[in-house]
Amino acid sequence: MSASAGSAATPAPLLTDALVIGAGPIGLWQAFQLGLLGLSCHIVDALPQAGGQCTALYPDKPIYDIPGLPVCTGAELIERLLTQVAPLAPQFHLGLEIDTLRVRDDGGFEVHASPVHGAGLASVHWHARSVFIAAGVGAFQPRRLKLPGAEALEGRQLHHHASEAPSLRHQHAVVLGGDDRALAWAIDLAQGIAAGRADAPASVTLLHRRDVYTAEPTRIEQLTALVQAGAMQCRVGQPAALQQDASGRLTGLVITNVEGQPDTLVAEALCVSLGLSPRLGPVSDWGLALDRKLLQVDTARFETSIAGVYAVGDIVSYPGKKKLIVSGFHEATLAAHAALDRLWPETPHPLQYTSSSALLQQRLCRPERDGR
Amino acid sequence: MSASAGSAATPAPLLTDALVIGAGPIGLWQAFQLGLLGLSCHIVDALPQAGGQCTALYPDKPIYDIPGLPVCTGAELIERLLTQVAPLAPQFHLGLEIDTLRVRDDGGFEVHASPVHGAGLASVHWHARSVFIAAGVGAFQPRRLKLPGAEALEGRQLHHHASEAPSLRHQHAVVLGGDDRALAWAIDLAQGIAAGRADAPASVTLLHRRDVYTAEPTRIEQLTALVQAGAMQCRVGQPAALQQDASGRLTGLVITNVEGQPDTLVAEALCVSLGLSPRLGPVSDWGLALDRKLLQVDTARFETSIAGVYAVGDIVSYPGKKKLIVSGFHEATLAAHAALDRLWPETPHPLQYTSSSALLQQRLCRPERDGR
Repeated sequence: MSASAGSAATPAPLLTDALVIGAGPIGLWQAFQLGLLGLSCHIVDALPQAGGQCTALYPDKPIYDIPGLPVCTGAELIERLLTQVAPLAPQFHLGLEIDTLRVRDDGGFEVHASPVHGAGLASVHWHARSVFIAAGVGAFQPRRLKLPGAEALEGRQLHHHASEAPSLRHQHAVVLGGDDRALAWAIDLAQGIAAGRADAPASVTLLHRRDVYTAEPTRIEQLTALVQAGAMQCRVGQPAALQQDASGRLTGLVITNVEGQPDTLVAEALCVSLGLSPRLGPVSDWGLALDRKLLQVDTARFETSIAGVYAVGDIVSYPGKKKLIVSGFHEATLAAHAALDRLWPETPHPLQYTSSSALLQQRLCRPERDGR
Repeated sequence: MSASAGSAATPAPLLTDALVIGAGPIGLWQAFQLGLLGLSCHIVDALPQAGGQCTALYPDKPIYDIPGLPVCTGAELIERLLTQVAPLAPQFHLGLEIDTLRVRDDGGFEVHASPVHGAGLASVHWHARSVFIAAGVGAFQPRRLKLPGAEALEGRQLHHHASEAPSLRHQHAVVLGGDDRALAWAIDLAQGIAAGRADAPASVTLLHRRDVYTAEPTRIEQLTALVQAGAMQCRVGQPAALQQDASGRLTGLVITNVEGQPDTLVAEALCVSLGLSPRLGPVSDWGLALDRKLLQVDTARFETSIAGVYAVGDIVSYPGKKKLIVSGFHEATLAAHAALDRLWPETPHPLQYTSSSALLQQRLCRPERDGR
């Protein structure tokens, strides 16, 4: 592999046999299969943690159709897959989104990723010998508040993550959302008021489009207690417009209340927690054959229309495809074998079994017969 | 469905949406997916217990590449799959081998199975609306002793299962084999001698082709102790010929010893435990398209050359096929969906998820949200 293409302005590229895009269950299994076959592997995901939808959307929901696991939650499945892949030591790059993918003259790929939230992370640049797209329905990003002027306030008076928000000391805060994450954020701020903390906001309002929250019962109890203690209020309505002063500073949020009438909330800080929304993103710009926003692959190699770029899981389309985790596991397995054959075409690769191959057991850091 | 084809001599046929041939890991998962989709299901296997190779050949060997199970033994995997399929209540028929499969005029199948060992079980006859072949490398059967005259002694002086063997009281017994099962059989007989039991054989000889046994260390210790106590002997060699008297009664076993010389063991009972050997068997007579003894299937429906007969797991061939359990799980999943579409072509079957579908959760006997 050549490492000559790095420009002076960017750091030296990372070299890897395989770059996996997406750290959901299928991306993790892709990394496991690649590692088992002896290929070095990096994994990138836009979310700040591994797990994809399983962790971000339904960590507590039971899943019943993973073979051999009569019941497990999304979070438990990811924990199990992380344990399984750990001995193969893939390198994780979280909170990054791929922006460019370019075919190199040597048949490999130049790939570049930028941080999703701009918070402290550096861009990363790879020379990857093969690429595996396991991006599910796309890169998950916080759902934006779609109001004129909102974008300009981002990072100043509009925040998408509690961890990124600066102190809201003495400010009138409005939290938008009705799920566990939104409630946790509002509760955390209101607890500051209730405890008389110095960095507490001046007020906290939770705004949701209806008066039912999709959150843990204990969370809702906490919320109710804080409202009764006068530490926060809850409002039902839809955000309609931003109210700003002459200098552009946010002063209020106009909402449409349940009666369909406009109403105004004092607002100096907007804490937006409207859930995550997938974005196919730059994958659609790489020149890969698409069929209704899905990547077309063959069922022998799970290769896209670009040789050396494989795609697996919910993002792919082929005759008979079902968007099930059990299918993604199979697709990733065959894609890993296909990549091995492409990267070392001269070597035969007879199928080996983890139950009998000393080589595979060594890669898994399992001394032979340790399970007896 | 019509039930008119049963002849007077045979019992009424069993009616089922799906008949799964093979109760290994893929057959069990096939039954799970069928049950999840609301199809009734019967499973047949030649072995006396579920699990296929996992149970019969490597129950204690660790497997590392089942997604979400960083390590599990063959026996554990089967136990997990049995637990998972239990709420869907497929009907098991063990110790039976399919001998005929015939397409019916109504598009279903007439299937007939006979007991493998002739021991007490009755034949079974189905009218199945669809058939799933998950037979792995074939039906497992005890490996036979291939010597002239051996077959004629079966059931009288030659036995393949301890459970089938009559009392060997006062007889000179030779146990053939070197695995756990063979040793357990020899030990059991020799313990009778050591304890002076009335039904004990006159002598016990363990014959194996080499002086190393593939058995649990504790088993080998027991064997050594019994040899030292004079309750049995071990010999190394290959069986070469049977010695019979004028009436055809077995009196001895001629062996070729380690020096390549003939030698004779007194033998009135042969206990043959030479392991299991797969036999593709009648599957090859059903007119299904074969490619080097493998069933050819498409990768969208995993259907064989006969509509309504699906095949999954190690017995199938398609471009890219790898004989891995993880692939069989996917194949069985798509085959179940294909059968549903074929059996109810007029009804749309949108994909449902076990994590969110009340219907699927009801079929699994899981009240909604019980995993929280």
